[in-house]
Amino acid sequence: MRKICIVVTARPSYSRIKTVLESIRDHKDLELQFVVGASALLERYGPVIDVIKSDGFSPDAEVHVVLEGEIPVAAAKSTGIAVSELATTFNNLNPDIVVSVADRYETIATAIAASYMNIPVAHVQGGEISGSIDEKVRHAVTKLSNVHFVSNKIAAERVIRMGEVPETVFVTGCPSIDLASRVINNGKSNLTHILEKYSGVGQPIDLSKGYIMVLQHPVTTEYNDSLEQIRATLQAIEELGIPTLWFWPNVDAGSDLISKGIRQFRETKGVPFVYFLKNMSPEDFITVLGSSKCLVGNSSVGIRESSYIGVPTVNVGTRQSGRDRGPNILDVRHDVKEIVSAVQQHLINGQYPSSDLYGDGHAGERIADLLAEIPLDIDKKIAY
Amino acid sequence: MRKICIVVTARPSYSRIKTVLESIRDHKDLELQFVVGASALLERYGPVIDVIKSDGFSPDAEVHVVLEGEIPVAAAKSTGIAVSELATTFNNLNPDIVVSVADRYETIATAIAASYMNIPVAHVQGGEISGSIDEKVRHAVTKLSNVHFVSNKIAAERVIRMGEVPETVFVTGCPSIDLASRVINNGKSNLTHILEKYSGVGQPIDLSKGYIMVLQHPVTTEYNDSLEQIRATLQAIEELGIPTLWFWPNVDAGSDLISKGIRQFRETKGVPFVYFLKNMSPEDFITVLGSSKCLVGNSSVGIRESSYIGVPTVNVGTRQSGRDRGPNILDVRHDVKEIVSAVQQHLINGQYPSSDLYGDGHAGERIADLLAEIPLDIDKKIAY
Amino acid sequence: MRKICIVVTARPSYSRIKTVLESIRDHKDLELQFVVGASALLERYGPVIDVIKSDGFSPDAEVHVVLEGEIPVAAAKSTGIAVSELATTFNNLNPDIVVSVADRYETIATAIAASYMNIPVAHVQGGEISGSIDEKVRHAVTKLSNVHFVSNKIAAERVIRMGEVPETVFVTGCPSIDLASRVINNGKSNLTHILEKYSGVGQPIDLSKGYIMVLQHPVTTEYNDSLEQIRATLQAIEELGIPTLWFWPNVDAGSDLISKGIRQFRETKGVPFVYFLKNMSPEDFITVLGSSKCLVGNSSVGIRESSYIGVPTVNVGTRQSGRDRGPNILDVRHDVKEIVSAVQQHLINGQYPSSDLYGDGHAGERIADLLAEIPLDIDKKIAY
Amino acid sequence: MRKICIVVTARPSYSRIKTVLESIRDHKDLELQFVVGASALLERYGPVIDVIKSDGFSPDAEVHVVLEGEIPVAAAKSTGIAVSELATTFNNLNPDIVVSVADRYETIATAIAASYMNIPVAHVQGGEISGSIDEKVRHAVTKLSNVHFVSNKIAAERVIRMGEVPETVFVTGCPSIDLASRVINNGKSNLTHILEKYSGVGQPIDLSKGYIMVLQHPVTTEYNDSLEQIRATLQAIEELGIPTLWFWPNVDAGSDLISKGIRQFRETKGVPFVYFLKNMSPEDFITVLGSSKCLVGNSSVGIRESSYIGVPTVNVGTRQSGRDRGPNILDVRHDVKEIVSAVQQHLINGQYPSSDLYGDGHAGERIADLLAEIPLDIDKKIAY
Repeated sequence: MRKICIVVTARPSYSRIKTVLESIRDHKDLELQFVVGASALLERYGPVIDVIKSDGFSPDAEVHVVLEGEIPVAAAKSTGIAVSELATTFNNLNPDIVVSVADRYETIATAIAASYMNIPVAHVQGGEISGSIDEKVRHAVTKLSNVHFVSNKIAAERVIRMGEVPETVFVTGCPSIDLASRVINNGKSNLTHILEKYSGVGQPIDLSKGYIMVLQHPVTTEYNDSLEQIRATLQAIEELGIPTLWFWPNVDAGSDLISKGIRQFRETKGVPFVYFLKNMSPEDFITVLGSSKCLVGNSSVGIRESSYIGVPTVNVGTRQSGRDRGPNILDVRHDVKEIVSAVQQHLINGQYPSSDLYGDGHAGERIADLLAEIPLDIDKKIAY
Repeated sequence: MRKICIVVTARPSYSRIKTVLESIRDHKDLELQFVVGASALLERYGPVIDVIKSDGFSPDAEVHVVLEGEIPVAAAKSTGIAVSELATTFNNLNPDIVVSVADRYETIATAIAASYMNIPVAHVQGGEISGSIDEKVRHAVTKLSNVHFVSNKIAAERVIRMGEVPETVFVTGCPSIDLASRVINNGKSNLTHILEKYSGVGQPIDLSKGYIMVLQHPVTTEYNDSLEQIRATLQAIEELGIPTLWFWPNVDAGSDLISKGIRQFRETKGVPFVYFLKNMSPEDFITVLGSSKCLVGNSSVGIRESSYIGVPTVNVGTRQSGRDRGPNILDVRHDVKEIVSAVQQHLINGQYPSSDLYGDGHAGERIADLLAEIPLDIDKKIAY
Repeated sequence: MRKICIVVTARPSYSRIKTVLESIRDHKDLELQFVVGASALLERYGPVIDVIKSDGFSPDAEVHVVLEGEIPVAAAKSTGIAVSELATTFNNLNPDIVVSVADRYETIATAIAASYMNIPVAHVQGGEISGSIDEKVRHAVTKLSNVHFVSNKIAAERVIRMGEVPETVFVTGCPSIDLASRVINNGKSNLTHILEKYSGVGQPIDLSKGYIMVLQHPVTTEYNDSLEQIRATLQAIEELGIPTLWFWPNVDAGSDLISKGIRQFRETKGVPFVYFLKNMSPEDFITVLGSSKCLVGNSSVGIRESSYIGVPTVNVGTRQSGRDRGPNILDVRHDVKEIVSAVQQHLINGQYPSSDLYGDGHAGERIADLLAEIPLDIDKKIAY
Repeated sequence: MRKICIVVTARPSYSRIKTVLESIRDHKDLELQFVVGASALLERYGPVIDVIKSDGFSPDAEVHVVLEGEIPVAAAKSTGIAVSELATTFNNLNPDIVVSVADRYETIATAIAASYMNIPVAHVQGGEISGSIDEKVRHAVTKLSNVHFVSNKIAAERVIRMGEVPETVFVTGCPSIDLASRVINNGKSNLTHILEKYSGVGQPIDLSKGYIMVLQHPVTTEYNDSLEQIRATLQAIEELGIPTLWFWPNVDAGSDLISKGIRQFRETKGVPFVYFLKNMSPEDFITVLGSSKCLVGNSSVGIRESSYIGVPTVNVGTRQSGRDRGPNILDVRHDVKEIVSAVQQHLINGQYPSSDLYGDGHAGERIADLLAEIPLDIDKKIAY
């Protein structure tokens, strides 16, 4: 029985890896070691740990690593703390492989801790393009990893061009699409019942009459502009006057400024049609996303899950620049007029056809099967 | 005045970057910020900090990061501590660029801390090949870096093939060669005087009659074999019976085992012709290297400085496998007979002609000039 | 010139030590080294660092130590991070004495880091009684300290009974009273102008017509009751219906629960007469306190500054139990009726006469003079 | 079943607490949680972990906390790392009580981590007197502890005078005496067989003909004198010319200097009658101690176990100053003549009668029984 350790540290990481967790847990030749940490444990971001437990998982370890003070030095120090804490965790759990997801600071912390402990690293979502510090981190994790489970052929080609041995690169699709596929194929749920499960800020809106969603994260390399950037989106939403579900941002350098912008806006403006939420279970989130008229912001959900579901998406700013995208995206700058105009155009277009750019819904099973079979080797050499 | 921060953490790192430090310090448009840390501060490895100060540098900060217990979990935790401590240091010093050297755990810690603090990273020695964990780390640092100062065209090509923008890659030569060039061109020093400066273990040997040198580090991914590997070299040296200067290994997972092997050997065998040393100033080391009949071990000094000077080198084991090498190298396994035979062959061949594979002796000036002129930008995108 | 290092880490710590900082800065034989850290740097608690800078101090170092996740394990880990970070800071600053204030986790972290670095520790506010973990910490810091600046004779006697050498114990008064004394003697300021300086949550209230203040912190050893405890106070305030200034709690295990309780209350109840604030400058806080009809909660401000000013205080719960107190205190449990009734009784009584139980307003000068003169010795022995 | 967590971090700590570990493990109402860390895990100090495992214990967790660089800043940072790591460990193990032993940096780290996590702390060896930083730490741990298991009535009185509630103070004797009692009562073992089990440095000496023992630790507050202090003892031993077993010092600020002094001495002097050892199992150590003619140095073993066994002891320097002592001690300064003369006087006197100053040999059972019965309460108040 190979022991596969997966570290989940944030709302989006859990959603993206959930079907892999399930497939490993249910695989006869694999033992799942599940580590939960960082913002997934924090009350003020809506603790993902509760969702995880209600999904039937019982984490093998918790790691507390987020240093307060959402400024760059705190982000760097949190990464260091994460490396140190994860080393202790891996020393206790003694896994055969560690799986690291995407491009976050915990992702590289996981890859570094495992590498120095001579544990093979498998990376999910390598070879994609993102903006800002995430771009550096994603490709650095590729170079620290021994196995690569990528979303599509374009990503596979990039990983191989970076010098990875082709035999270690597998096009599995992105597991985030698995969840989207499952939820969408289950048919529509009762949206009102979903909203009642979560306590937000503001007056709950009536989802049955059409609504848009906002999900906007700080861009760490544009830290000083975070407040101005969130204000542009806030003003655009005010001008649109359409019922809106607004999701709170991740823990990252800059998120305090975003929170501040949102709070000031709420205190000074009357926007009874906006409801602010922290978190949902991945399934509920996809359900609500699937029925929304438009997604606004800079989350990779717009690029990834939304392309599969066909949700019209207004992508604001540089955070997703360069990322491979389906036809459902309109790109705009942090400009009130551009945001308003793009939303209005999408409302006219309506839903887009489904794209398999990021997967076909079976990534979880493929990854679990590969983890059970691939040779385990920590030595690697650049292929040229 | 651009503030350039360089982090030096070990004996070989200082030697390799010393001429860059000098050139930055002496450059009219640059201010040097010099951080010393990790094993460079430790008594039991011969503290490099003393050499640094006697060279006229006064460090701006010290960072203590080495966790005791030379096993993998300690190496991983030291990396985490280094990220956290360096973040505090960079927050205090506020540099415009951080320079990270080679492929050690402090190298990646430096690159990560700077990246999350939105400080551009310049990497020296990217694009080369090494073995074991260093290979992962070197290329990961390339992906975290914004500027690359590489040793030769082969390295430049590798860095560019990994997706780095060609305009950010500069063939400067390796600064370690600058020092070798300077020392060799200064003419021969009095070897006996040099040896008198350092207190070692055993009876000092008479260098004037010909001697060989040993420098063998643990291979972190072959941790469990460290003891056996050092014993093969020890036995080979015993059989050769030639006066030998043996240099103590770096702080790394496995170095306790190497030390143990050396101590046991010293207690049980009569080897009056072997003298054990911890450290020398870079210049003295190069002088002694330049006059030696043969270098044995797995240090990159055999590949790098020795190729420029033409020192016959017996490279043992996998640590340098794949690395671009000049004609002065004979590769052998951790096998007593192979080591003995290769040394004997080199003794017959004698000195090799100088190779410029790793530089021409002017890397320091070139790097300083570039650091003063290149555009500073933290955003980067993979080039394909 | 003796270098005196003072570490300030939170709103109340700064207020309490401010006149000492001033007196050291202005003393001809002393050099002030001012370290700011922990929650004093955090946006979401109203960063004290801004107040500090506007008071004309420029901190010599910042330390980021607060681990997110306001549960006991995070508090413990933050203490560890604080010890480690402060050690680096003291190594850089090389002070002759370190001054540690009160009974917080940063207080003991400061005392431990300095002790292991052979730096004498001076403690302010030793020998007092508090509740919960603070009680353990305050007396442990006494045992780690070499010099004691205490508030009154009762405290001095306790410190001496604990085995401290009487010659190292000085009754200086508590420096927090200095500030209260200065502000109160300056005459009344314009309250409306003060309130306009700070952005709070809710509709600003008209202070000219009489108001009460609330300041309630979590009790770390009663972590699980935090939510219930804050609800009792919230309900009492609702029933009283009097204009109220409510100050946000410290960063501590439990403060997330308090914040949650406050947010839920604000969303569900109409309490237009309550205005929520994060922070004020110490002077503004004292001014507003001096004019309030009553202080409700469990802050030591009720015991300390309020006894000097004579502010009627309703002390709720165990946090201040055992603490020496003046006549201005009514003690109640976390019970709505008891709180309401005590406030009403105080409103009838009105202002109390000033007590010098915690000092006469000249502690800062006394402490600075002593720091310049006392013998510096790190060795200590219990006196029996 | 109460879960009792004990943290052991060094050779002497394990010896002192071993019978408590056994009694808890064998108690029907207790579950032992055994944490091993710090220098107990380190190869170069002779890893206590191996002794622990061969004694039949299997540790529940390991904590790596010793930062290299045996200078004060590293000791302080190690304390911080220990607090942080132990917090994670306690969070995983969830003990009902944590037991902290003696006066080391790990002792206070244990007490702080447990206190902030609302776990009751039991302290063994409170109320005794030691020198230097240990004195500060021992009494600070008393103030952080909820229960006190002390060696004798004098210690109990000190703890109570410090303000601890008498009902929480129990005179159990020191568990280190249990082991001494057990070994001595077992009758003499074959000394030669014992020595053969351990690999030391130098030529093994013939124990059957009479020998002395040396055990000298660095004094952290006299860091700069460490080298000179060890040289005085080394020279005294050289002059005495008697067969000597010399035990390597603890990991502490200064121990590198002591190691350096010993190494230089060995290289330059011919002392074939001195054998250097790192570690022994507690039982073997006591056996060897019991047959020695004299113990020289500054270890508390001279004060504690030796008083029970009656071993003539020359106590050098300030490290044990003030400590309650039996008749077997001669106190001297770090002076060659004084040391030589005191040893010679002891050799004439011979063995001393047994003293029960530190216990009667039944501390382990008493402590286990008390841990099973005492009320568990984290709140405490100074008793005056």
